Amino acid sequence: MARSRIGVVGGTGAVGQVTLGLLREHGYDDVQVFASARSAGREIDGRRVVEATAEALENADVDIFLFSVGTSASRELVPHAVRGGAVAVDKSSAYRLEPGIPLVVPEVNGGRALENDGIIANPNCCAIPLTCVLKPLHDEAGLARVRVATYQSMSGAGAKSMQRLRETDHDDLDLLMEWDFDGDEFDEEAKLRDETRKILELPDLAIQATCVRVPVMVGHAEAIWVETEEPLSPERATAILGASPSVRLEQFPSPGKARDIDDVLVGRIRRDPTVGNGLALFLASDNLRKGAALNAIQIAELVLAAERAAA
Amino acid sequence: MARSRIGVVGGTGAVGQVTLGLLREHGYDDVQVFASARSAGREIDGRRVVEATAEALENADVDIFLFSVGTSASRELVPHAVRGGAVAVDKSSAYRLEPGIPLVVPEVNGGRALENDGIIANPNCCAIPLTCVLKPLHDEAGLARVRVATYQSMSGAGAKSMQRLRETDHDDLDLLMEWDFDGDEFDEEAKLRDETRKILELPDLAIQATCVRVPVMVGHAEAIWVETEEPLSPERATAILGASPSVRLEQFPSPGKARDIDDVLVGRIRRDPTVGNGLALFLASDNLRKGAALNAIQIAELVLAAERAAA
Repeated sequence: MARSRIGVVGGTGAVGQVTLGLLREHGYDDVQVFASARSAGREIDGRRVVEATAEALENADVDIFLFSVGTSASRELVPHAVRGGAVAVDKSSAYRLEPGIPLVVPEVNGGRALENDGIIANPNCCAIPLTCVLKPLHDEAGLARVRVATYQSMSGAGAKSMQRLRETDHDDLDLLMEWDFDGDEFDEEAKLRDETRKILELPDLAIQATCVRVPVMVGHAEAIWVETEEPLSPERATAILGASPSVRLEQFPSPGKARDIDDVLVGRIRRDPTVGNGLALFLASDNLRKGAALNAIQIAELVLAAERAAA
Repeated sequence: MARSRIGVVGGTGAVGQVTLGLLREHGYDDVQVFASARSAGREIDGRRVVEATAEALENADVDIFLFSVGTSASRELVPHAVRGGAVAVDKSSAYRLEPGIPLVVPEVNGGRALENDGIIANPNCCAIPLTCVLKPLHDEAGLARVRVATYQSMSGAGAKSMQRLRETDHDDLDLLMEWDFDGDEFDEEAKLRDETRKILELPDLAIQATCVRVPVMVGHAEAIWVETEEPLSPERATAILGASPSVRLEQFPSPGKARDIDDVLVGRIRRDPTVGNGLALFLASDNLRKGAALNAIQIAELVLAAERAAA
């Protein structure tokens, strides 16, 4: 596994840097780093950064590319990266909702990763932990209705936003809502709804999100109300979630507690007394790890394992 | 009105200081400041702070006391303050749910303020803006169900918590959940539910809250889902809220935008597509002003106006 050739595109960004750290932790040493012209030539993680041109990606000796660049850069570069036979796991929203392109959270719909034609999309950083928690509840009792209010950290908006938070006076810390707005909802809210539906393969799932960015550096949290088709007690939901992959029970999950942790922390699991089959819960997850870099590496490992099994 | 004698108890705390500033803005000049022994003798707002002993409060020449001290201090001192005939508006949770004691948001149930036996309770800083928004919606379409996720600022936990935030490194900013926990919910969540029911005079209102403190200095926000008995379009809800007292429409309300503003900011008013009669909305309010000091002064003004009318 450690001899797989990995290309990290966008290696100097917030997610890219976590990706490089996690690849080292996971024992990968054949890693090439690509980034924009601005960063090309720099050394990062002991590796010289190569400019991510169409030509460089097409001709690279790479089995799997992990992309964490902006949506327009992904649209431009991903097709070149896969032209030579490599697989690209793309973190941007460019391909997530495209029919035929798998949108994968390994614990939820990992099998879909193997149905790729070269491109696999890595979901939104709130959709990943949300589906990790919703999937086991759906399997047990059927999801009828989901409402989510998010507490998203600045790192979800990239390294520049983290720097902006560092430079903000404590008295001026505020909630931010700076996503594209269509007059009714933020594109972030549409992503969370549409991607959750696609990952869970529930195209008509009744779900609404209210997205808010909070002045926290790393880690996203979500207050969730779930209604199920069948009765599901908080005790049973707790037992199910405690036994679910990549989910860890925690009394009061917070971004700080989730930071540098692979698992999604979930707690505050209690009855929603306002309806018959209602539960309230709260999750926190490291948006740079499980919400981004780690999920991409787990997708890559599914693909690499399947390739080895087929060889 | 400016000749009414006001006693501010807890004048050196986060709410107390805003109270003194607002009293000045509102033209009150006969203001006495009481606080704990630790602060007695200090000068604040040009006035010498008097120790808030039972005796000092009983013998003070004061028409209305505005209390913003802890619950146990309120329990001890408020009965003395009202013994001499003064009215006490108490910000603590000591008396809020006590039968016969009015719990008042002037725009929502102001008439109840006049039914006092000396003590009027000032609600929780999240319940005040919530009821300002829910009351007009209830009058129009009947509330069936309410869910709230809060984004509460550090000042809601007092001046020491504000100092603690100021001393927190930007990389360590986190969500906090430090209220008393009964194994199922925080006392803050119980307050928000029970006080909202009492203020709206809907003892069986189906309502659940998830309370979270965010690293913001001043201003509370709330993501709200409301279901109504009768259909209520987002357009009609927007028109109603725009015409409601102490409510101001704002596209993206945030604590920063609400700071130093008297009105509750409300926006993101949209359909909740997961149910028949559902709305989602988002509010922000200055928890030290409308959420505390301003609401208390407005209650005091109701009482003073009634006394003048009766005189």
